[in-house]
Amino acid sequence: MPREIHLRLRRLRLRMEQTGTDAFAVLHLPNVFYLSGFTGSAGALFVEQSSATLFTDGRYKTQSREELRGTGVIASISRGSALSALGAHLAARKGRGVMRVGFDPTHVTFAGQSALEREAGRRIRWRPETGWVEEMRAIKSVAELAQMRRAAGLISEVFEKVVNFVRPGTTELELAAEVDYQMRKLGAEGPSFDTIVASGSRGALPHARPTSKRLKRKGLVVLDMGAILGHYCSDMTRTLCLGKAPKRVKTWYQAVLEAQAAAIEALGVGVEAGAPDLAARRVLASFKLDKYFVHSTGHGLGIEVHEDPRLAAGQKGPLQAGMVVTVEPGVYVEGVGGIRIEDDVAILSRGTRTLTTAPRGLLEL
Amino acid sequence: MPREIHLRLRRLRLRMEQTGTDAFAVLHLPNVFYLSGFTGSAGALFVEQSSATLFTDGRYKTQSREELRGTGVIASISRGSALSALGAHLAARKGRGVMRVGFDPTHVTFAGQSALEREAGRRIRWRPETGWVEEMRAIKSVAELAQMRRAAGLISEVFEKVVNFVRPGTTELELAAEVDYQMRKLGAEGPSFDTIVASGSRGALPHARPTSKRLKRKGLVVLDMGAILGHYCSDMTRTLCLGKAPKRVKTWYQAVLEAQAAAIEALGVGVEAGAPDLAARRVLASFKLDKYFVHSTGHGLGIEVHEDPRLAAGQKGPLQAGMVVTVEPGVYVEGVGGIRIEDDVAILSRGTRTLTTAPRGLLEL
Repeated sequence: MPREIHLRLRRLRLRMEQTGTDAFAVLHLPNVFYLSGFTGSAGALFVEQSSATLFTDGRYKTQSREELRGTGVIASISRGSALSALGAHLAARKGRGVMRVGFDPTHVTFAGQSALEREAGRRIRWRPETGWVEEMRAIKSVAELAQMRRAAGLISEVFEKVVNFVRPGTTELELAAEVDYQMRKLGAEGPSFDTIVASGSRGALPHARPTSKRLKRKGLVVLDMGAILGHYCSDMTRTLCLGKAPKRVKTWYQAVLEAQAAAIEALGVGVEAGAPDLAARRVLASFKLDKYFVHSTGHGLGIEVHEDPRLAAGQKGPLQAGMVVTVEPGVYVEGVGGIRIEDDVAILSRGTRTLTTAPRGLLEL
Repeated sequence: MPREIHLRLRRLRLRMEQTGTDAFAVLHLPNVFYLSGFTGSAGALFVEQSSATLFTDGRYKTQSREELRGTGVIASISRGSALSALGAHLAARKGRGVMRVGFDPTHVTFAGQSALEREAGRRIRWRPETGWVEEMRAIKSVAELAQMRRAAGLISEVFEKVVNFVRPGTTELELAAEVDYQMRKLGAEGPSFDTIVASGSRGALPHARPTSKRLKRKGLVVLDMGAILGHYCSDMTRTLCLGKAPKRVKTWYQAVLEAQAAAIEALGVGVEAGAPDLAARRVLASFKLDKYFVHSTGHGLGIEVHEDPRLAAGQKGPLQAGMVVTVEPGVYVEGVGGIRIEDDVAILSRGTRTLTTAPRGLLEL
């Protein structure tokens, strides 16, 4: 871990140098973790060419010391918020002249940035720079890919255990509880997002939260779940059928499965990020189901469950080796139900590797 | 629910009127929920005197229709982000003249507000107004208090079930999984924060996350847990002792218990929010333990797990009837362990009511 952090800080400093940025204020906790290893719930990292300082508070005195060991990042413990400690640090800076400080305007509130600028004083020139750390995070290292494979393997295992609990009479909430329980038992830190269990017509809501509704004897059940393992997320969806699937449901399922295969097929180094989405939609259109696919095809995944890149219509950025994305087409028919199939896929210099391992065929229970 | 929402919107509109604010943009999801009932993960609510519009996207078409029923709030579904839909709506506004729009600068990113101002155009005057909705939310209605009592009762019940699983050899993660599982089984939507299980010396970290560390035969175990039930949070901590507690641990426990009792005693309508913290510290000082109490005494609780008011040194605002706060003093001794006792307490026009019901005495297992 310390070695990875040294490399990441070096890459950030290179970009600072290339853009004439004297320092960079990291204000988003997943980015603070990525660049220092610190996992507390409050902190700001200030990176200069010759030093890096983590500002946090007394609650994290012991923890920050443990987590920063070997990274070269120094902890600075203060009473107030990390942001105001950073402001005071900048105001007290020795030496003359102006310092150009980069910050990501998507990671600080309007109030927070306004206060920071006030506190830091006039010798700081603030430069909004969006996505610097996110761009780095989008490309996973070998160690990160290995960790994501473990997180994806874990959620696949959870699914195979939970299938046994999918039966008429069980509530959506009980099933979600079972998912979360099993992932914890298998060593996950927790779910990477609120587990979704949506049965029957509720499956038509792509982001339905589980309710106390009981599973019926017949009908579709969408299970969308992810685990955090060693700080990295997985995200997988399977759709099951209680009872024998009617013919039209079989057709829909087949369509989604083929759409997903086409999207995965379309992934590759140098491909535009919008291409897999287009491929999935084309397949669904051939089934006349494209109008029921109401969200985008996928998203990057890593320390956070939604990261760069977005696999959505019109996304131009070329996909790169080391990216990990979800591929999750679906069809949602109001009043009837929904089908979604989602896997996590790593883009490699040659081909792709699907990290989630649970079977994808239609399960009729 | 719709009736409560009408009342809340009326109170917000009154404040708008009194301050010469033509409209208010609600950009924080818990506030959007409070003022409309909408529970989706993306949305902005725009409140004028004669109308209220929720901007959200296609994923929430059906859900928003269901949730807004009877509230008078209109849903506007669009393709882009809620913020840019709001910007476009403002830019397209008919009529001349300037519109003064309030927004909370702590609930929008620097980038988001900058883009919104650009999109909305020059006929909008943006007015930063902090905490309007939070101030309303701090005072719970009778229905909210009843719901919070249920959420607190539920977490107390979870604790009593989980006590049976606290034994040597169990890992912190397994115990946390058991907590989350039991709350789901009892009908909770989920945990209100990541459940904390910290055993032995890890208890000295007030915000320790559970690890794969196994409970030892002897030593303290801190369990900090909360559940969301019907959209409202609970938050409770108990500290158990495996094996017979040594004398100094008994003394520490007694000190924390007395500090908590003093802080609860100090709660009341019109009291300064800093007073309970002072009361707790005074008791700990009489045990020479005040330097080990490294965080503040408590915080408001409701739709979010951290709300107004803060029970911290120097907080001046008077406490009011209808507020619900945690009271959670603790002592943390590096290398040894920690003790924290936390309950949820409602401030009533006469006296207080403790909502969490699990026993508070030292349990030696």
